Amino acid sequence: MLNHIKPINIVYSMTAVVSAHFSRFGKRSESVLELAAESALPIVRKSAKEIDLVIVSNSYSGEFNGISGINNLVATYLSMDDVPSMRVDNTSGSGGTAVLAAHSIIRAGEARTVLVVGVEKMSDRQTRDVTSIISSLLGERERATGASLPSLAALLATIYMRKYSATRESLAQVAVKNHRNALLNPYAHIHKAVSLDEVLSSRTIIEPLRLYEISPISDGAASLLLTSDETAGSFTDKPVYIRGTGFASDSAFITSRNELTSLESVRRAGAVALKRSGVNRPDFAELHDMATVLELVEAEALGLFKEGEAWKAVLSGGTDIGGEMPLNTSGGLNSKGHPIGASGVAQIGEVFLQLRNEAGQRQVKNAETGLALSMAGFGNSAAVTVLGV
Amino acid sequence: MLNHIKPINIVYSMTAVVSAHFSRFGKRSESVLELAAESALPIVRKSAKEIDLVIVSNSYSGEFNGISGINNLVATYLSMDDVPSMRVDNTSGSGGTAVLAAHSIIRAGEARTVLVVGVEKMSDRQTRDVTSIISSLLGERERATGASLPSLAALLATIYMRKYSATRESLAQVAVKNHRNALLNPYAHIHKAVSLDEVLSSRTIIEPLRLYEISPISDGAASLLLTSDETAGSFTDKPVYIRGTGFASDSAFITSRNELTSLESVRRAGAVALKRSGVNRPDFAELHDMATVLELVEAEALGLFKEGEAWKAVLSGGTDIGGEMPLNTSGGLNSKGHPIGASGVAQIGEVFLQLRNEAGQRQVKNAETGLALSMAGFGNSAAVTVLGV
Repeated sequence: MLNHIKPINIVYSMTAVVSAHFSRFGKRSESVLELAAESALPIVRKSAKEIDLVIVSNSYSGEFNGISGINNLVATYLSMDDVPSMRVDNTSGSGGTAVLAAHSIIRAGEARTVLVVGVEKMSDRQTRDVTSIISSLLGERERATGASLPSLAALLATIYMRKYSATRESLAQVAVKNHRNALLNPYAHIHKAVSLDEVLSSRTIIEPLRLYEISPISDGAASLLLTSDETAGSFTDKPVYIRGTGFASDSAFITSRNELTSLESVRRAGAVALKRSGVNRPDFAELHDMATVLELVEAEALGLFKEGEAWKAVLSGGTDIGGEMPLNTSGGLNSKGHPIGASGVAQIGEVFLQLRNEAGQRQVKNAETGLALSMAGFGNSAAVTVLGV
Repeated sequence: MLNHIKPINIVYSMTAVVSAHFSRFGKRSESVLELAAESALPIVRKSAKEIDLVIVSNSYSGEFNGISGINNLVATYLSMDDVPSMRVDNTSGSGGTAVLAAHSIIRAGEARTVLVVGVEKMSDRQTRDVTSIISSLLGERERATGASLPSLAALLATIYMRKYSATRESLAQVAVKNHRNALLNPYAHIHKAVSLDEVLSSRTIIEPLRLYEISPISDGAASLLLTSDETAGSFTDKPVYIRGTGFASDSAFITSRNELTSLESVRRAGAVALKRSGVNRPDFAELHDMATVLELVEAEALGLFKEGEAWKAVLSGGTDIGGEMPLNTSGGLNSKGHPIGASGVAQIGEVFLQLRNEAGQRQVKNAETGLALSMAGFGNSAAVTVLGV
């Protein structure tokens, strides 16, 4: 790396997150570069000289914004022309994947301090175009049938309810909870409480899923500063450590999978991350609730609830902020919004705030460990990060 | 990672390239996924079970091919559904950047063996569209003036000739040499010898640069298998080691740079990579000759020749395969072709072949160290890799 030439046999045992900042998510008039800067500037103003590398988590700057080389443009826009940069893309799982790359590059001694900027600017395109562009991650067979990610989620919802006798209300309750949580998050896209009735009577997107059950099309950015454990103390007296990571994939040919309800990549990535971290059960988790049903299926795949049981926990308040396993305290993709490249970075940002006791009204009490699941496609890939103080 | 769960305190001191394969570069009828597979299958057939991670180096699958999540699609296409993957993009510098990421991920112990697949399928679009899409990496100011990468190269050619009294013939001779080298490379796009007169009388692209002096629009793929030094011996008895890496950037606002002829990012990345590797002067180099003049300016920025002297070496045969510093034995971007995401991977593949004494008729005698420069944009970023046996 540029700023810190080190012999290649120096490696660090751990990396820490030492700062997290966000743009407000929503329909924003700013450009993709301006959004990136909005989230990164608080970090850059304080620590520009220490940053060895910028990793931009972004999937669709070409399709949505007509620009390429976004990593270099972001670095230039931040007046860090001479700091090397790369773009890491793994569609909806880009954020977790970018943090995994940053974590490795720091541990390998290639960089000591890395700025991760997740950003996506989606709202300039029509909903139909956005859905079509995002569905370009599917295999040809799936695309030929007209399948999209919402339609696959609808299929999953039907299977989940039938297989586990889950009530329709339990799925809708995920949206009620996440809308409630988002009201407490100043960066969230949707600031509106919704009742169970409102969710269930909102417009049908794809049967059985309703409008409030699918994440909106959002613009937004989130930035993290990561550094080696050795240097973390020079940035903050409250570093949050990456305790374990897991990364797994599944077939892009979704219809060739054995089971839709198992989300095999999530199960495997979660098992590895938890094993590596030595954490049996995190105190809370940020999940990839692109559709309500996914929060339930993912929570089970990660072992946070037994198979077929998560829907009961949601109904009984077990996944509320004050519950036994708070899920998506940030509002989740469902209500915080889902700017693709930003989502996974923002999830780890939320875990960071919670573990530093800085989550304000949505604070989980006495949280010491948290998990973030960044998922690509429909479980095509899963990056799980377990953090702790 | 998936296949090899390791405690996080295991790190490796070095990584090795143990295999390299290529698709033929050129105007190909195959899809981007088929090209990726063409280069990767020889590796996958032999070593699929050992691969922990796939990194796809690709910049424009959305713009050129209408697909996203290409990393997951490539892994699925290779029947490695359960192997995690990510896309690394840094425009024309993607290949070197992807190898840097793989190198770090291996050294950090997150993966032991990584398949890097570089691929781009460009020829489905018209030349005008390709130029426009690639120029989307430029800053708004440059785009507003109608600048493109070829026009910047033309400007650089004029400045270089004036500043160093370089002859027009010296630039053209780069094309003559690289066309000659490509004739010896079965994977090269252009298999046609050209004389100095032919280069100088070919169609003007942008004054003063001629058709044979600008890299063609190519489709193609290249794949490398990287592993830790500990495991390299189980793949081959002739591993090639990554001795040092350097990564640096420059402003995306090209017109705000002090000097066009210094390629500051190349200079800095080269200095770091050579220092880390302990190599004063590599035995040969693969450079980013998108335009002929760039080979000269880069060779000087890397210290392979003194400032303003490279053009003399080209004229006297010093950069020929049998010369004191062979440059672009593969044919370079100029004649091997320049499928954006594949180029940097293929460069390291050429260094690999040369260092194993497997480069056939274009073999550099007694080569023990080689350098590859993967450059993004117009020196917006540079990733330098120094390899040795």
